[in-house]
Amino acid sequence: SGQPVQIVKINDDPDDHSFFLDEAALNRILLQDNGALKDKPLCIVSVAGAFRRGKSFLLDFLLRYLCAADRHHWLGPEDSPLEGFHWRGGSERDTTGILMWSKIFLIPTGPPGSPEVAVVLMDTQGAFDTSSTVRDCATIFALSAMLSSVLVYNLTANIQEDDLQHLELFTEYGRLAIEDSGETPFQKLQFLVRDWSYPYEAQYGAEGGRNLVQRRLELSDKQHSELQDLRKNIRSCFSSIEGFLLPHPGLKVATDPGFEGRLKDIEPMFIQHLQDFVPLLLAPENIVIKKINGNVVKCKELVQFFRAYIEIFKGDEMPEPKSMLKATSEANNLASLQEAKETYVAMMESICGGDKPYLNEQVLDIEHCRIKDQAVLVFSSRRKMGGEEFSLTYREKLEREIDESYANYKAHNESKNIFKAAN
Amino acid sequence: SGQPVQIVKINDDPDDHSFFLDEAALNRILLQDNGALKDKPLCIVSVAGAFRRGKSFLLDFLLRYLCAADRHHWLGPEDSPLEGFHWRGGSERDTTGILMWSKIFLIPTGPPGSPEVAVVLMDTQGAFDTSSTVRDCATIFALSAMLSSVLVYNLTANIQEDDLQHLELFTEYGRLAIEDSGETPFQKLQFLVRDWSYPYEAQYGAEGGRNLVQRRLELSDKQHSELQDLRKNIRSCFSSIEGFLLPHPGLKVATDPGFEGRLKDIEPMFIQHLQDFVPLLLAPENIVIKKINGNVVKCKELVQFFRAYIEIFKGDEMPEPKSMLKATSEANNLASLQEAKETYVAMMESICGGDKPYLNEQVLDIEHCRIKDQAVLVFSSRRKMGGEEFSLTYREKLEREIDESYANYKAHNESKNIFKAAN
Ligand SMILES: Nc1nc2c(ncn2[C@@H]2O[C@H](COP(=O)(O)OP(=O)(O)O)[C@@H](O)[C@H]2O)c(=O)[nH]1
Ligand SMILES: Nc1nc2c(ncn2[C@@H]2O[C@H](COP(=O)(O)OP(=O)(O)O)[C@@H](O)[C@H]2O)c(=O)[nH]1
Ligand SMILES: [Mg+2]
Ligand SMILES: [Mg+2]
Repeated sequence: SGQPVQIVKINDDPDDHSFFLDEAALNRILLQDNGALKDKPLCIVSVAGAFRRGKSFLLDFLLRYLCAADRHHWLGPEDSPLEGFHWRGGSERDTTGILMWSKIFLIPTGPPGSPEVAVVLMDTQGAFDTSSTVRDCATIFALSAMLSSVLVYNLTANIQEDDLQHLELFTEYGRLAIEDSGETPFQKLQFLVRDWSYPYEAQYGAEGGRNLVQRRLELSDKQHSELQDLRKNIRSCFSSIEGFLLPHPGLKVATDPGFEGRLKDIEPMFIQHLQDFVPLLLAPENIVIKKINGNVVKCKELVQFFRAYIEIFKGDEMPEPKSMLKATSEANNLASLQEAKETYVAMMESICGGDKPYLNEQVLDIEHCRIKDQAVLVFSSRRKMGGEEFSLTYREKLEREIDESYANYKAHNESKNIFKAAN
Repeated sequence: SGQPVQIVKINDDPDDHSFFLDEAALNRILLQDNGALKDKPLCIVSVAGAFRRGKSFLLDFLLRYLCAADRHHWLGPEDSPLEGFHWRGGSERDTTGILMWSKIFLIPTGPPGSPEVAVVLMDTQGAFDTSSTVRDCATIFALSAMLSSVLVYNLTANIQEDDLQHLELFTEYGRLAIEDSGETPFQKLQFLVRDWSYPYEAQYGAEGGRNLVQRRLELSDKQHSELQDLRKNIRSCFSSIEGFLLPHPGLKVATDPGFEGRLKDIEPMFIQHLQDFVPLLLAPENIVIKKINGNVVKCKELVQFFRAYIEIFKGDEMPEPKSMLKATSEANNLASLQEAKETYVAMMESICGGDKPYLNEQVLDIEHCRIKDQAVLVFSSRRKMGGEEFSLTYREKLEREIDESYANYKAHNESKNIFKAAN
């Protein structure tokens, strides 16, 4: 019943990496059954995080739950292979872009006869694979956050500070794309920690997950302001934040290339907690309805949001998220350039400012050369990340700007030349 | 025989986070045995990477090897607890700063009677714990790279792009600290992947490790330039790069709070590969002697390098490594500020440049206000990461700079005032 459909693709030409939306495919999903669902409110669950960490595997259990006739016995037979979104062992990336499950599931929000919600599942390209740029990862993650009502952030073993830093960058990127409407930009963030190994510290499940998330996102005056800012940023992006800790599913799941996802090959503890987890996202009483700017989003409206968001990321108005080194290097070089430019201006003003008399052209030129050298020295003597070659473009920019500035100074100086003025 | 000694500490006052060196402690280690070792060349092995990933646990096996009388039977008895550097289960950080083992081991580099090398082990604070800033992590990591002859980069499950991005940032930070001497700044980088789960793709051990590293650091024209630059940067920082894949040590090691490191509780496969790994670092024929700027470093000289490096990181000459969001926000805001400033200057020049006649003061003031508004609009209409509040300081800086610039324009304009000049 259904298959994965790629709706967002990334062009992987070396210097392109642009995104595009397969609108026809998306419309086929959203308008299925002759548009019978088109006015239903949506619940969109998407799973994001690093590649090869069991995201698709998890989604296939969500599918089992949604397909099951009996919501209390949804796990299925002990030895059927696990199917749905493609998952597999191996260390290389599998999914690219964003996939959506072709079938939409209707879930009643209460007793029979009550209004129904259309549930959509989205799988994303794992972040940090060897072919993706920071911008690719940020865009995929930001799109997931913007378009889902529940974003599952899939992590392994722990919640580390770098996991939070990525979350911060990627969600801020999304927030920037939708611009400030005063509303909290995103809805539910579900931290999901796989292979949790310290049940004696925080027990498996939702309770332990809440504890861990609380500990990791705790704000205190004793923290460095960088740590505080990060926590405030993340909290302000989501209207609710939950955690869940899953035990290790056993070495067969992790390592055996012949493993096909049969329940009998998975540690019972994992399955037990999975049975708690899935209904937390999908049971009628837990369904989160997708809202954008406070308004419920209906099936037929989703495509326009997809289109608008992708357009924003495609355009060149959005700043480009870069690797830590690139971003730091850029900031270092820009700051040095600016300091050097200020040095030039201040020294030139002291020589040929408005309150200074006319200077002989040759004298001015000599002064300019001397001061330019000093300014360039200010630039080059500041330690900057990124190396000489990277720095060169900024140095050249500095020299260009100084030369432009000099042309202005020359003209101002000329205007003071009484002999010429007298002619 | 020995204990861990903290030699680099971090002050964890919220707005301090400064580093300091316990020189006395370091000297006690390096000048032990009445200075008998002081002229020996050094081999320094340090292990770095995220917290709670088995770094200290691994080091304790290196200790066993170094302490063993017989290098072919060094693993020790089946059921002794594992001791040495403190390791433990749990999700919170354990080690802070940098620790050194108090005992230095002498290893002959060849047959009996050949020159000996003094082997030093260093353990580092795991990166990305909840109390460390990016600068803390970068500094610890950079110091490990600068001061070791073999840097073990300890990873879990895979080598991801974000692992490489961190490596890039942290080693570039170290490279910047020592400044360019033309030499490759660091020596051997040993990727160590724990819990490797895909032996059918790349087999456990050194061979598989080399394959994986080669795949991850491969350069190709088909890659985005960001990915190529990263790979070039990392390769250029180390004189050799190796990989090693260790299997999962079993769920008892990972999860059991009662586990004390007894061999009998560890998966035999793990132990088997550990037995290959340790001699790759420490067997006489594999020892890498520490060199700085091409010169062998002796025991007695190490303290001065430690001191000099820590001073560099303490000083305010080094740029501050920041989180991805902070660095990106800074770069975005600086670039916007600059563009806005350029707009102001260009427009003012067209109104009151050197080749323009004197303008009535009120007129100039009105023009200035109009142009300033436009420049501020240029600034605020560019999308920038980091939010309003962060942006405010840059906007204020822009306004200050514009006002200063206006003062200069006013003076230049005044100098054209023939009536005044005539007085
Ligand atoms: N260690 C571990 N492995 C898992 C878990 N769940 C699934 N796997 C395995 O991880 C591998 C990658 O799964 P997949 O769902 O394709 O990962 P994705 O790239 O994140 O979508 C497969 O071999 C799964 O058997 C888990 O919770 N822990
Ligand atoms: N999964 C896994 N756990 C390990 C491995 N080696 C050690 N551990 C466990 O990881 C936990 C942390 O070990 P520790 O050496 O203190 O980590 P460190 O913070 O990186 O120094 C302990 O409970 C160890 O038993 C390994 O290769 N894989
Ligand atoms: Mg997948
Ligand atoms: Mg440790």
